[in-house]
Amino acid sequence: MLKEWHRAARPAEDVLESRLAEAKAALAARQLSIKEQGLPVLVLLEGWGAAGKGSVLGRVIRNLDPRFFKVAVMGEPTAEERRKPFLYRHFIQIPEAGQIVFFDSGWMDEVTRQYLDGSLEEEAYKSRIASIKRFERQLTDNGYLVMKFFFHIEEKQQSKRLEGLMEDENTKWRVSDADMRQNKNYDSYKKVYNQYLEDTSQPTAPWYLIDSKNKKWAQLQMMEFLINGIDTALKNASRAVPILQNTFPLKPISKLADISLSEKTLTEEVYRTELKSCQKRLQELHNIIYRRKIPVIIAYEGWDAAGKGGNIKRIAAALDPRGYEVHPIASPEPHEKARHYLWRFWNRLPKDGHIAIFDRTWYGRVMVERLEGFCSENDWQRAYNEINEFEKELSDWGAIVIKFWVQIDKETQLERFTLRQNTPEKQWKITDEDWRNREKWDLYESAIDEMLQKTNTTYAPWYVLESNNKYYARIKALKTVIQEIETHL
Amino acid sequence: MLKEWHRAARPAEDVLESRLAEAKAALAARQLSIKEQGLPVLVLLEGWGAAGKGSVLGRVIRNLDPRFFKVAVMGEPTAEERRKPFLYRHFIQIPEAGQIVFFDSGWMDEVTRQYLDGSLEEEAYKSRIASIKRFERQLTDNGYLVMKFFFHIEEKQQSKRLEGLMEDENTKWRVSDADMRQNKNYDSYKKVYNQYLEDTSQPTAPWYLIDSKNKKWAQLQMMEFLINGIDTALKNASRAVPILQNTFPLKPISKLADISLSEKTLTEEVYRTELKSCQKRLQELHNIIYRRKIPVIIAYEGWDAAGKGGNIKRIAAALDPRGYEVHPIASPEPHEKARHYLWRFWNRLPKDGHIAIFDRTWYGRVMVERLEGFCSENDWQRAYNEINEFEKELSDWGAIVIKFWVQIDKETQLERFTLRQNTPEKQWKITDEDWRNREKWDLYESAIDEMLQKTNTTYAPWYVLESNNKYYARIKALKTVIQEIETHL
Repeated sequence: MLKEWHRAARPAEDVLESRLAEAKAALAARQLSIKEQGLPVLVLLEGWGAAGKGSVLGRVIRNLDPRFFKVAVMGEPTAEERRKPFLYRHFIQIPEAGQIVFFDSGWMDEVTRQYLDGSLEEEAYKSRIASIKRFERQLTDNGYLVMKFFFHIEEKQQSKRLEGLMEDENTKWRVSDADMRQNKNYDSYKKVYNQYLEDTSQPTAPWYLIDSKNKKWAQLQMMEFLINGIDTALKNASRAVPILQNTFPLKPISKLADISLSEKTLTEEVYRTELKSCQKRLQELHNIIYRRKIPVIIAYEGWDAAGKGGNIKRIAAALDPRGYEVHPIASPEPHEKARHYLWRFWNRLPKDGHIAIFDRTWYGRVMVERLEGFCSENDWQRAYNEINEFEKELSDWGAIVIKFWVQIDKETQLERFTLRQNTPEKQWKITDEDWRNREKWDLYESAIDEMLQKTNTTYAPWYVLESNNKYYARIKALKTVIQEIETHL
Repeated sequence: MLKEWHRAARPAEDVLESRLAEAKAALAARQLSIKEQGLPVLVLLEGWGAAGKGSVLGRVIRNLDPRFFKVAVMGEPTAEERRKPFLYRHFIQIPEAGQIVFFDSGWMDEVTRQYLDGSLEEEAYKSRIASIKRFERQLTDNGYLVMKFFFHIEEKQQSKRLEGLMEDENTKWRVSDADMRQNKNYDSYKKVYNQYLEDTSQPTAPWYLIDSKNKKWAQLQMMEFLINGIDTALKNASRAVPILQNTFPLKPISKLADISLSEKTLTEEVYRTELKSCQKRLQELHNIIYRRKIPVIIAYEGWDAAGKGGNIKRIAAALDPRGYEVHPIASPEPHEKARHYLWRFWNRLPKDGHIAIFDRTWYGRVMVERLEGFCSENDWQRAYNEINEFEKELSDWGAIVIKFWVQIDKETQLERFTLRQNTPEKQWKITDEDWRNREKWDLYESAIDEMLQKTNTTYAPWYVLESNNKYYARIKALKTVIQEIETHL
């Protein structure tokens, strides 16, 4: 890509000035359309040291209303950030609808730097590339405009600029050792950059090369690309996206109707004994995963009144409070709704060595959001694959991902609802919505069957907890968590 | 990819048999849905020699109605095929709506073989990869289901099978030198295959790895993948596809309204002199490009009665009839309409060293098909990029691509229409449709302006031929062709 980067010759100064004036007006107008149509725009700026990314960005944003954009300056990941999946710090910065976020260098810089300094081996680099492609594609599939710019200068130009900066006491600080190293090894850096650009150029998130020899010309290129990109994205607004073929390894799983619940019971006595020994073992394992820095994610879904809360309590009771967190998931807040629906879960990921328990999860997309029409058909049909990709990210990071479906039958739910209704201190637990959901039992059941079947991956499997008898379900949950952790150790 | 290919363990024999019975019934049912919904399905089978592609394919098609599928056995390209763009022989085999075409090895086999034997250098290999990705993406964007299978066996298994085949006089012929070479250099082949699989795995056209140690199990895997793929594609039927950002280098071009026609005239005397000298020069150039095997593609579009026919005649008159062809393009035939709209143009590409002149072209998509509603809005909006990709393919192949817009003003058209109407021997040239199109002049003009602006690439530029004076337009066409060829030599 860098070999054929010379795209358009720099126009004469007067043409440049008049095109620049046009572009400024056009970009200002586009900003309003972005706001009105709720388009989220992510702009990534990458390139050579001293190519002028920062100052060109400064010129571009001078024409924008500061309420509508943000600049995310991404340096090296902090120690804290290194304890999350590598996409985490980028994902949480994505814009909300109607906003632009400019990333002043980002995942390209991070991955190529690590590859060049040898901390990312060939296989790990390839896995990063796959993650990045999924990340960018998920954003564009979910209506984001993603524009990626690489600011290019030739070796000589770079060394001239670095020398210029070094000579002046006031600018000397801007030249880092990394910049000097880059210039000294220009050709090997170029090879790696070129490879990265080719590896990550996707139809819906292509790379634009910016000829950065002249700042005003670089500014014009970036602005004109932005304008065209925004126009294309506005045309695509609310357009359905093709559903992808599944390529993740799935395991067969029973339909809910075929799961027998009646004989899955434990006496209280057996329960007490088992509870004690399971909790003891889990406590030990928690120490081990803490020391080995293995993250664990436990996801709970289930019917209303199936006993999720009590079940979670028995897991949590075994854990050191400094090493786990329970996330109850309700409807998304406005600032969450304005972003990719997985954003709020990325935001809640544990540090390595920690356990996160989700009381309801990202599977809301293919259950309540699907059935209540909170998202489009295209959105939820696409979500199975997006969720498999999300969990693949967690699993590649090294996380143990355990998913529970807490199952009861319809009669048991009615009994529990009635009991709640008739017991003053339990009445807060039952709402009109619960009764309304119950009326849609059959619709939910078939949505759940589809969900289980399409997301029961080998790397993030579902476990059904038969919970007509809560004792049984709690012990099964504990044993499953223990077994999953033991298998991974 | 080949490193983590072990997806699912082969099930026990009885489970395998019952799943196979289910899959056979399901696939037979899917075939009817394919037919009913007019889904075109392209299935590519690639893999190791002796992996059993052929015999597994034999087992799979035994369950299909032979009226609805075709097997395309792709060997090495013939001498004739080598004179076309490398995608040509594959593109012309794509299925029509409602049909399945199985490619028994295809573009992967061709490209990896050429890479391995050194006839494709690194850069050329990368350019092939880019072409293949565009090809497959264009198919899926245009409603095709593309499924790609790689039949994988380990080195030892392969050598055992090859030995087995060699020992029997009846099967000996099936082992080629290439197979033996592959087995001998298994690891280096594996590396190249793995790279290719990673390079060409796309969200909408992913690779499926088939564990081919056991034929029945391989058959089941292929059938189950096919069934799931078809189900996904049926869900996507007639779904609009996101418009892509333009990444091709475009040159500015004037709007039709800004092109002055009046002073663009030649006297008959000057015309005669120029015509003679231009035709002489073009004749010489035709010899040179014939000897140097450079293909030339000249595309004509223009208003009705603008003088396309007479213009083409003056170009053709200079050429050796054995080395060129004129393709008049009318509405597509049913078998053409049932395929990707560029198919009929792929089918009409010249051999290298030859000249193809198109009287109307693939640009019909963004003019008449757009304005008469013969395709969806999404179809024509997508077409600018698809056409730029198509012409990039031609240009990468080495073709000189020249596009003429033959321009007249509305008054001149009226004069010529009236003359035709009133001249008995010219009456056949004017139809009611011409008058109807004339009423839509303004709509056409703005569609044409958009087309010129979005497809005026540096590698396949437009030239406007001012044709109020036909003499002027003919000489300009000749001079443009001459100049374009001279620049490329």
